[in-house]
Amino acid sequence: MALFSTDANSKSRIEEEELSVTSVQDLAPLQLAARKLRIHSLRSTAEAGSGHPTSCLSAADLVAAVFFHAMRFDPADPANPCNDRFILSKGHAAPILYAALAEAGALPVEKLYTLRKFTSELEGHPTPRLSWVGAATGSLGQGLSIGVGMALNGKYLDKLDSRVYVLLGDGEVAEGGVWEAAAIAAHYRLDNLIGIIDVNGLGQSQRTMYDGDVTAYQVRFAAFGWHTVVIDGHNMQQICAALDEAQGVKERPTMIVARTLKGKGVSFLEDRDGWHGKPLKKGEELEKALKELPLNGAGEPLRVARPPLRTGPRSTSPVAVTLAVTPMAADFPAPSYQLGEKVATRAAYGTALVKLGTINPRVVALDGDTKNSTFAEKFLAAHPQRYFESYIAEQNMVGAAVGLATCGKIPFVSTFAAFFTRAFDHIRMAGISGVTIKYVGSHCGVSIGEDGPSQMGLEDLAMMRAVPHSTVLYPCDAVSAERLVAAAAELKGTTYIRTSRPATPVIYHNIEEFPVGGSKVLRTSPRDCLTVIAAGVTLHEALTAYETLRAAGILVRVIDAYSVKPIDAEGILHAAGQTHNTLMVVEDHYYDGGLGDAVLSAVATYGVRVYKLAVTEVPRSGKPEELLDVYGISARRIVEQVKSLLAQGVLPLS
Amino acid sequence: MALFSTDANSKSRIEEEELSVTSVQDLAPLQLAARKLRIHSLRSTAEAGSGHPTSCLSAADLVAAVFFHAMRFDPADPANPCNDRFILSKGHAAPILYAALAEAGALPVEKLYTLRKFTSELEGHPTPRLSWVGAATGSLGQGLSIGVGMALNGKYLDKLDSRVYVLLGDGEVAEGGVWEAAAIAAHYRLDNLIGIIDVNGLGQSQRTMYDGDVTAYQVRFAAFGWHTVVIDGHNMQQICAALDEAQGVKERPTMIVARTLKGKGVSFLEDRDGWHGKPLKKGEELEKALKELPLNGAGEPLRVARPPLRTGPRSTSPVAVTLAVTPMAADFPAPSYQLGEKVATRAAYGTALVKLGTINPRVVALDGDTKNSTFAEKFLAAHPQRYFESYIAEQNMVGAAVGLATCGKIPFVSTFAAFFTRAFDHIRMAGISGVTIKYVGSHCGVSIGEDGPSQMGLEDLAMMRAVPHSTVLYPCDAVSAERLVAAAAELKGTTYIRTSRPATPVIYHNIEEFPVGGSKVLRTSPRDCLTVIAAGVTLHEALTAYETLRAAGILVRVIDAYSVKPIDAEGILHAAGQTHNTLMVVEDHYYDGGLGDAVLSAVATYGVRVYKLAVTEVPRSGKPEELLDVYGISARRIVEQVKSLLAQGVLPLS
Repeated sequence: MALFSTDANSKSRIEEEELSVTSVQDLAPLQLAARKLRIHSLRSTAEAGSGHPTSCLSAADLVAAVFFHAMRFDPADPANPCNDRFILSKGHAAPILYAALAEAGALPVEKLYTLRKFTSELEGHPTPRLSWVGAATGSLGQGLSIGVGMALNGKYLDKLDSRVYVLLGDGEVAEGGVWEAAAIAAHYRLDNLIGIIDVNGLGQSQRTMYDGDVTAYQVRFAAFGWHTVVIDGHNMQQICAALDEAQGVKERPTMIVARTLKGKGVSFLEDRDGWHGKPLKKGEELEKALKELPLNGAGEPLRVARPPLRTGPRSTSPVAVTLAVTPMAADFPAPSYQLGEKVATRAAYGTALVKLGTINPRVVALDGDTKNSTFAEKFLAAHPQRYFESYIAEQNMVGAAVGLATCGKIPFVSTFAAFFTRAFDHIRMAGISGVTIKYVGSHCGVSIGEDGPSQMGLEDLAMMRAVPHSTVLYPCDAVSAERLVAAAAELKGTTYIRTSRPATPVIYHNIEEFPVGGSKVLRTSPRDCLTVIAAGVTLHEALTAYETLRAAGILVRVIDAYSVKPIDAEGILHAAGQTHNTLMVVEDHYYDGGLGDAVLSAVATYGVRVYKLAVTEVPRSGKPEELLDVYGISARRIVEQVKSLLAQGVLPLS
Repeated sequence: MALFSTDANSKSRIEEEELSVTSVQDLAPLQLAARKLRIHSLRSTAEAGSGHPTSCLSAADLVAAVFFHAMRFDPADPANPCNDRFILSKGHAAPILYAALAEAGALPVEKLYTLRKFTSELEGHPTPRLSWVGAATGSLGQGLSIGVGMALNGKYLDKLDSRVYVLLGDGEVAEGGVWEAAAIAAHYRLDNLIGIIDVNGLGQSQRTMYDGDVTAYQVRFAAFGWHTVVIDGHNMQQICAALDEAQGVKERPTMIVARTLKGKGVSFLEDRDGWHGKPLKKGEELEKALKELPLNGAGEPLRVARPPLRTGPRSTSPVAVTLAVTPMAADFPAPSYQLGEKVATRAAYGTALVKLGTINPRVVALDGDTKNSTFAEKFLAAHPQRYFESYIAEQNMVGAAVGLATCGKIPFVSTFAAFFTRAFDHIRMAGISGVTIKYVGSHCGVSIGEDGPSQMGLEDLAMMRAVPHSTVLYPCDAVSAERLVAAAAELKGTTYIRTSRPATPVIYHNIEEFPVGGSKVLRTSPRDCLTVIAAGVTLHEALTAYETLRAAGILVRVIDAYSVKPIDAEGILHAAGQTHNTLMVVEDHYYDGGLGDAVLSAVATYGVRVYKLAVTEVPRSGKPEELLDVYGISARRIVEQVKSLLAQGVLPLS
């Protein structure tokens, strides 16, 4: 029997003896742990007045076995890189995760009763406000992807002996993201990844598709290449045996399919529909339930844990070491382009990414079978061990990037801008987690041409601006593209870089700098009648329009708003102040939510006039130049609009 | 041998004899058809200078067999409800779809050579600009869901004898959306759905995960409950036999897994990596390829097709009949609430949806295992045959809604607002298609409380505003909720309705009307110092703030902007003009892309000052009232902001 003396408030000293699960008495501590987890789940949700206790009750035996039989971790050190990791994909069962951590000594038991309070890091669904949670869950079907990322790191990058455990609900297995993760996990032979499905047969609003048919899950995961074990999820011996079996499986991940009962342990809750997301009422109802879960005097907190397999250096601060943002810009080799040379910003991205990979071994790249278009292929060629082909499965690509980020890697994730919409929920959850990921979306706008609207990113700026604390960058040439990629490498949280398909002229000197939150005034005079603000492909259209207007005696200011968020509010207001308080924003993006709205938002309280030129209808296939013109964002259309404003008397000529 | 005399330019007369495929000579017309499809694909993409001919070549024999052996349709009548349907999920193979339609007499052969031209309805990826395409494809992994929707209609609603054929690429099978569709298709026993996977082993940038291993696909679809048939995708007899077998399969869908070669038919293209998305060059390269595809004098267009099984009435215009928007508002029973009664707008949605279902038999509902929260459960209770439980699989839910919409059904799709981000790519593609769907997202904002950020819709307005031509509605009480749901029923294209979790007081009379694009001025005086614009939960906060301010001698105008898009620009500008050109927008949404930006966009060129109160950080669990206050959008915070502006001298007291 394993006994650990740990005290969360002092340095931990851990002793371990071999644990054998074949004898009944060995299971008693685990069964006790499960009972305590049930009690905590019921009490804490009753105290909070909300939560999902029945979803916790079905998982209690599984979680107890994972935490107190299988997992190797140091309860005093969440950031120990050798820790096994646990992801609660069925995030609504958060109370049981918190209970397990408390019983393991990782947080004080009293804290459990602050569940869902505004001041508590024990939120309704797990978030990294709690240091044991690397990435937030709660939007179902994402945890397995996060686990894939952690497992990729453990097997191929940091080469750890640790395991990654993911507990899923059965209802969430309907999510396609789970099957993307399943396929990738088998393809990459992630034998350090162990999934467990809590098959309690009940979803939120009705019974699940397969109800209690554990075979349905088993045959599907087996077909996807996983080792599978079917068990009674309330039989502690079977659970431990399955977890032990999983340790020895090579070359494939393991899925333990556990038949359970929602509400298990309390007779009036067991397998009853209508109890999802309902806490028991404090007082009579709660006490009635607790009577069925007696502790029989074993009231002392049970603190058991197994040590990590390789004791790594104790982190100096809980999560700071592996996640620290490393300065890289200083070592970044300058771009080396000729002025006027035509280079696509997507190509410059590839070049810059290779440079970053050389500077920092933590930089990794993922792409969704578009690497020859996004130019992530350059990174694959230069740093093959750090490139993970993610195939046509963007949700899992983002989820895996989240997992890698929690392990201290610096992921750059690329696909067509349009296809990031496939992963918006994962991007949203990554934003909630605050993990550091750079998303690079190519083929933005109508300027991609003949492939047509399905391939055009026209809403990506709106999407990425709406991620809290995101940075959104949109370079117009190869120099700024490389510089912004280098800048992005040092940013925390969500960063999005928008790249274009067509080759555009280099307009900046190689030594030019591009501070995040800045902009570049490219054309200026004391007689500018208004300011044209653009980025990417339309910046070049604006420069062409400038020449045409100048030849007609009309001067405009031109600003490259390469930093869409944060936007250079000060610079823009200054320009507005000097150009009749009139701005014209031109973007290869839909009308709502993009650069135009970003500019509007920046000048919102200053009474500035903003004219937006953007794509106002669903575009169609055509030549790039044709489309820019038809959709109102070409040089010719900019000239037309400026002249129209002048003709209407909206602004004076100078 | 089946012979059909059809002439696309005159009334079609169709004769059919039984087709047996066991004799070799029967296959000759099909092999000829396949060859012509190859020739067209190579020629049209060479002419266009772009496209994916090798992806067409691998599919040519499959497409020929589907169109000229299996499918029953009237080439002169795209809208015949009895037609079999074909969805090209691997949308980049569009040229071969067009070629098949041309050879079937559904469009002139010469048109094929307008591929990808701006003026042509034959776009780079299929869109409904071509009447034979019900829903756009091109973002991979969505076609099977669309097929699920069509099949649900055929089997359960219109009870047709027709089939739905979906051609998938192998790379796209990595998309989770395919597995959501697969699970649902088997669950709903869609034996009228036949999928075909073109397993050519080559993705865009490298070989696929399973390469040419057809068994990998076969075991996975079999595990998901499909009938599976593995064939050589270039053996016409096997293809036809598989298609024939699929006709007779009952109670489960069929997946035909076809081993093919990318570029099949041209020796220098066959199974070569690096040819994805590359057209041949006109001239020598093209001619070299065409030499390998001789027609041997069989130059006449081959026009074969089988008739629909039940001849329905010829539609009066190509797609107008089944998709016509039926007026419903006139028959909609008025809401019946008491002023002051507390009702959640999500509950009112459920009530309104039931009413619509009673009025119009084409109204259908889908929900992702949240029906007890979104109140779609009311529709399930009232109209069970028209409710489709979609389980926790939002991508497929939206794709299936698209399929249903193409069959003339009026889908209302609901889940938590936050979880619609899971389906943004499908929503995006539905927007490109212009199909008519209403999305109803509940549990918006921080006002949901303790469940925390993973469950809060805080970017949904940004997302849905960015869908071209969308309508975005945000009722604040039960009366406006019901009225707006009724109004939505008559709208074309994408409509989004945002509902809230908490019960809020009814503030409108039951007979009040809410025109789309309108707003309601709820508090007004000649001395208003500014205008507060809000919607949903914050509208009530604004009304409370109004009272507090009034008690302090400060008057503000209050507007309910229930129509976020189109927004009542005229009404807002009028109010601004009367209230010192100063607006304060308060929303339970992130700062970027929501109601504030919608207002800003409306007043953009008028120099109006707009102060935005919105959520500026990732929220956390807490009580709803607590969160509204902490995140700056409560009545108290509105009052604080107004007073602050007055104190700063930004605006006069009256």
